[in-house]
Amino acid sequence: MTLRTRFTDLVGIEHPIVQGGMMWVGRAELASAVSNAGGLGILTALTQPTPDALRREIDRCRAMTDKPFGVNLTILPSVSPPPYAEYRKAIIDSGIKIVETAGHKPQEHVDEFKAHGIIVVHKCTAVRHALSAERMGVDAISIDGFECAGHPGEDDIPGLILIPAAADKLRIPMIASGGFGDGRGLVAALALGAEGINMGTRFCATVEAPIHDNVKQLIVANDERATRLIFRSLKNTARVAASSVSDKVVEILAKPGAVFEDVRPLVSGAKGREALETGDLDAGIIWAGQVQGLIHDVPTCRELIDRIIRDAETILNGRLASLKRA
Amino acid sequence: MTLRTRFTDLVGIEHPIVQGGMMWVGRAELASAVSNAGGLGILTALTQPTPDALRREIDRCRAMTDKPFGVNLTILPSVSPPPYAEYRKAIIDSGIKIVETAGHKPQEHVDEFKAHGIIVVHKCTAVRHALSAERMGVDAISIDGFECAGHPGEDDIPGLILIPAAADKLRIPMIASGGFGDGRGLVAALALGAEGINMGTRFCATVEAPIHDNVKQLIVANDERATRLIFRSLKNTARVAASSVSDKVVEILAKPGAVFEDVRPLVSGAKGREALETGDLDAGIIWAGQVQGLIHDVPTCRELIDRIIRDAETILNGRLASLKRA
Repeated sequence: MTLRTRFTDLVGIEHPIVQGGMMWVGRAELASAVSNAGGLGILTALTQPTPDALRREIDRCRAMTDKPFGVNLTILPSVSPPPYAEYRKAIIDSGIKIVETAGHKPQEHVDEFKAHGIIVVHKCTAVRHALSAERMGVDAISIDGFECAGHPGEDDIPGLILIPAAADKLRIPMIASGGFGDGRGLVAALALGAEGINMGTRFCATVEAPIHDNVKQLIVANDERATRLIFRSLKNTARVAASSVSDKVVEILAKPGAVFEDVRPLVSGAKGREALETGDLDAGIIWAGQVQGLIHDVPTCRELIDRIIRDAETILNGRLASLKRA
Repeated sequence: MTLRTRFTDLVGIEHPIVQGGMMWVGRAELASAVSNAGGLGILTALTQPTPDALRREIDRCRAMTDKPFGVNLTILPSVSPPPYAEYRKAIIDSGIKIVETAGHKPQEHVDEFKAHGIIVVHKCTAVRHALSAERMGVDAISIDGFECAGHPGEDDIPGLILIPAAADKLRIPMIASGGFGDGRGLVAALALGAEGINMGTRFCATVEAPIHDNVKQLIVANDERATRLIFRSLKNTARVAASSVSDKVVEILAKPGAVFEDVRPLVSGAKGREALETGDLDAGIIWAGQVQGLIHDVPTCRELIDRIIRDAETILNGRLASLKRA
């Protein structure tokens, strides 16, 4: 069985399952494995140190799959921002057809991508932001609930509410993100009005994810309660795995008058990358969503996607069909 | 169409929709209307001032419906607790067959209800508490996610994660609570492993709910963001409607060293009851869940339940069926 939706038709994939952009994880190994399995793999632009390195990573991914894949470009406010326009040009020049945008004020990037015929999927965490992105001209929304790894925003609206609330107002297709990892979630997302699911944490615990096995085993071992919200007091909330580092960050920022500078060394991207690559779980912050409570193994991307679709089929044709009485 | 599940079979109802216990709202008018529409209506024991008043309310409900209905008994730690054993005896003596328990250490009550052949549905907000209740001998679990009105616990796990995580471990049937209000949510809950849904806020915005129309219109007008979590710093978190009162409570309790006594007059049950009954929305705390973002009208209970089942049917036989490709 396949599940064909407005989103699979839009981006030309077999299964309505997307691997969301993830810093240090969204490399060619993972993106190509997801795309080869019929989902949509996504490279993370800023994981590459330079726009030229991104060009090479796109070439590398293209050598590993002939299926569609996309590139994530996340725009965060910064005093010394990366050269976004140059990364954007690398994406366009490389002939990428699908981009996932996220973050603040993407209009300039959306305009430029659309001018080059690129399909833009914008990820956001609130209905009002989704409507704003629709007005900007994006082709689809990835709506990200409170359950998610990374930045859930400050509204704390989980997918059960956020997905149907957004579906009631959007005209463009929407996929659901945050809290998804199995066939049950996929059917729930489709019932709530989404046209597919986006998964991050679940794809980190796959054979092909280019991170240390210790991190994959951490996700398998952790239950749904083992995440922490950091940066809440800074109105820049991020959900990460519970660890000695994240507990320390929460503790420091809970002190009156605490500012970001107080935790900067603990939360640096370099330290997070070190944790992912060396498997030293206390080296830095590791992002993880609550869905880790539903993750119990480390399959290949193909095994995972096949299982999700097979389980969704069993739910639709078995459990749900058997409940119906005329 | 009807949807027959392990839960509808257990309690002998037509539709897998339960009206959860709600202080000041769970009276005979609402419970009988829900039961007459094929759901399970529930009276709230402690809304009645005495055990004898509860006996009379049960008689009154029985005069209004010949369908099954239940009684909620919520056990909260208190320095001067209500006479729980006497309320329990009133429930047993009245021949009630279904009880919803909630709160702390229900073992004594579960034992006594089970000794009298009563079906016990225990409401809780964590997988470990659900497993504990299963070991105590309850017949079903009502698992309550972060989205809910009232007490979501301190784990902040939404239904998308909590329902399947609980389903993976429980043997007894489970219904899903928190964030449900329409047919999309019902299908999602069933896909995630629940055997039905419990709704509170949605049933407050019905014709038969015995509360002032101002409160119903507030729920209709509010979006999903218009709730507040109070008592977080006291580890007794409650989700309530955003209002001048709840904003004030949050503000006071955010001050260093603040204690419950500082807000007691603002959050008294009598004041909350006054708000519900007079429609003065600034009189006291009004409980509401995030699902208010999906509530746009004030139907009768029968209209609501019929619509949810009809919409679920359309999703199952229409939208979801049409996505499948061999």
